[in-house]
Amino acid sequence: MPSDAALDLTLDLTADVVTLTRQLVDIESVSGEEAVIADAVEAALRALPHLSVERFGHTIVARTSYGLSERVVLAGHIDTVPVNGNLPSRLEGGVLHGLGSCDMKGGDAVILRLAATLERPTRDVTYVLYDCEEVDAARNGLNKLSQSHPDLLAADFAILMEPSNAGVEAGCQGTLRVEVRTHGERAHSARSWMGSNAIHAAGDVLRRLEEYVARQPVIDGLTYHEGLNAVLVSGGVAGNVIPDECVVTVNHRFAPDRTEEEALAFVREFFDGYDVTLTDSAPGALPGLDRPAAKEFVDAVGGEVGPKFGWTDVARFTTLGVPAVNFGPGDPTFAHKQDEQVAVSEIEHCERVLRAWLARD
Amino acid sequence: MPSDAALDLTLDLTADVVTLTRQLVDIESVSGEEAVIADAVEAALRALPHLSVERFGHTIVARTSYGLSERVVLAGHIDTVPVNGNLPSRLEGGVLHGLGSCDMKGGDAVILRLAATLERPTRDVTYVLYDCEEVDAARNGLNKLSQSHPDLLAADFAILMEPSNAGVEAGCQGTLRVEVRTHGERAHSARSWMGSNAIHAAGDVLRRLEEYVARQPVIDGLTYHEGLNAVLVSGGVAGNVIPDECVVTVNHRFAPDRTEEEALAFVREFFDGYDVTLTDSAPGALPGLDRPAAKEFVDAVGGEVGPKFGWTDVARFTTLGVPAVNFGPGDPTFAHKQDEQVAVSEIEHCERVLRAWLARD
Repeated sequence: MPSDAALDLTLDLTADVVTLTRQLVDIESVSGEEAVIADAVEAALRALPHLSVERFGHTIVARTSYGLSERVVLAGHIDTVPVNGNLPSRLEGGVLHGLGSCDMKGGDAVILRLAATLERPTRDVTYVLYDCEEVDAARNGLNKLSQSHPDLLAADFAILMEPSNAGVEAGCQGTLRVEVRTHGERAHSARSWMGSNAIHAAGDVLRRLEEYVARQPVIDGLTYHEGLNAVLVSGGVAGNVIPDECVVTVNHRFAPDRTEEEALAFVREFFDGYDVTLTDSAPGALPGLDRPAAKEFVDAVGGEVGPKFGWTDVARFTTLGVPAVNFGPGDPTFAHKQDEQVAVSEIEHCERVLRAWLARD
Repeated sequence: MPSDAALDLTLDLTADVVTLTRQLVDIESVSGEEAVIADAVEAALRALPHLSVERFGHTIVARTSYGLSERVVLAGHIDTVPVNGNLPSRLEGGVLHGLGSCDMKGGDAVILRLAATLERPTRDVTYVLYDCEEVDAARNGLNKLSQSHPDLLAADFAILMEPSNAGVEAGCQGTLRVEVRTHGERAHSARSWMGSNAIHAAGDVLRRLEEYVARQPVIDGLTYHEGLNAVLVSGGVAGNVIPDECVVTVNHRFAPDRTEEEALAFVREFFDGYDVTLTDSAPGALPGLDRPAAKEFVDAVGGEVGPKFGWTDVARFTTLGVPAVNFGPGDPTFAHKQDEQVAVSEIEHCERVLRAWLARD
């Protein structure tokens, strides 16, 4: 693990939120390789006497404990998708470019700035920075924490600082992955007619995906947008062998009016005739704008509420019975793209709004 | 490399040819991992005082040098395709089962038996056992030898002991591999409509392959049979990213009436509109039954001559100006298949025929 002295990095929580975002972006932290950034986050939070800090793997929880009548969770993941020629960060004309700038180190920087500066918030606050959000749900740091220490996540309300254009996005779509397998029979490729080509057979799987039309249901006035995509494909034995297996890994994003079971049933029917294996699943979350805590936060922040397309740990909190919304800097359409970026003004806006909400009487 | 004492294996060249085939099959020798089998072959040949033995990597050349008027090459590769639950060998009802039994350790055993027992052949003989035939031409042991020491392959005639049902198969088809690439644009899979899916785009590549109709030209009275197959496919960045690249590796087998250039032009036109990169190419060989040395051997062996579908190093000898045919035990339709096998009678037949041809006046 890259945690030796030479790689130790220090975060300066007295710096402004944009400088802090850059510091976070410039610490590479692809899922599974969060040791260095987690070390830096932990060290910075442990230096704050008003917080009690605990670490579980590469997930860090810092809490105030003033015995206030309300507790709120502010949470963000510290990992990113793989590097794509988009590091280090670059600040240009009010826009910060770089891997993770949008998803979601801008939000993480807001969390760390509030943690450092809100010594006496009006509500007790639980700050959570966690790992492995961009990979299988089973590895998700918040998921593991919710199973091992659900008490640490108990709260009246939770805010996930996933990119949402610095506005409130309610609910989230669910996500599941399946492996769709085609089978064939090996043979020497010089006498291919003696075998059966499993990769050719996957052509029909890809054809169905190409022809897929996304459902766009309206829920609580918000229009969701589903998706069904091949995210990985692999097959082949050797350069001169007709392959006997091909695996297409498909990611289905489903609106929160469907349960995981209903979504899986849809996928199985879509790939009727093929060998379909579920590998990963996480439920969506209904918008839940009728809950008092959500309503109150939305009123305080102002602006229009939109639907959340991406799966976020809002769903995890919903499962724990904690009302939660997405609220973070960054246009989510830049997440996972080569030219990932975030407007500096949105990071600053989120810090300002949350500070006002948590500092006022 | 697995060549320590514990793995040292000894081949008994005084054993009958079927026992020797089993010994060879039971030494795992997937392409690139031929050290153990090459050590065993080298040791067995070096024990024979009538041969001069040289080794280049995992390729072994053993020669008689009696100054006879004719020299013949007997050649076989010692590698196999990957293991597929088909080791160790199993002898049942006159059929030897196991990886490499057909392609081509039966032929190798014949070569080793002749090397050990023909102390005074009627023609000088060059025995060649070489590595990496089942992978890219650039790694092929005989190819490397033909470039570094072409003098060692000089001969009046060459016999490749590739499986040919113990009959003479003339010429061989060429082979080339290309990578066909599709491109897209990455995006978060929760907002897939913001990107473009390169794996879905490969559906059309696979569709064209499914619809391919093979050319079957007749040359010198022999009917060849071409092939165009995906042998590998890979694509994908992460489980939640719309992939921006997909690579389909395609193997084209072409009849010997086409040059490598003509075959590549066909493939490029077939995948018109796609990014096509040549990665590997080897020419076919025309039957060449009009050459005196080939004619003479065919007459001596008797039986009908057939076309060779698989690429073999016959083409390599053709390029060196040495007439060559395929003649070896085993039904080539079993090559690279899980239930690979060879009839014991064919191994024995090949040994008998070659012994008679090389021992008579």
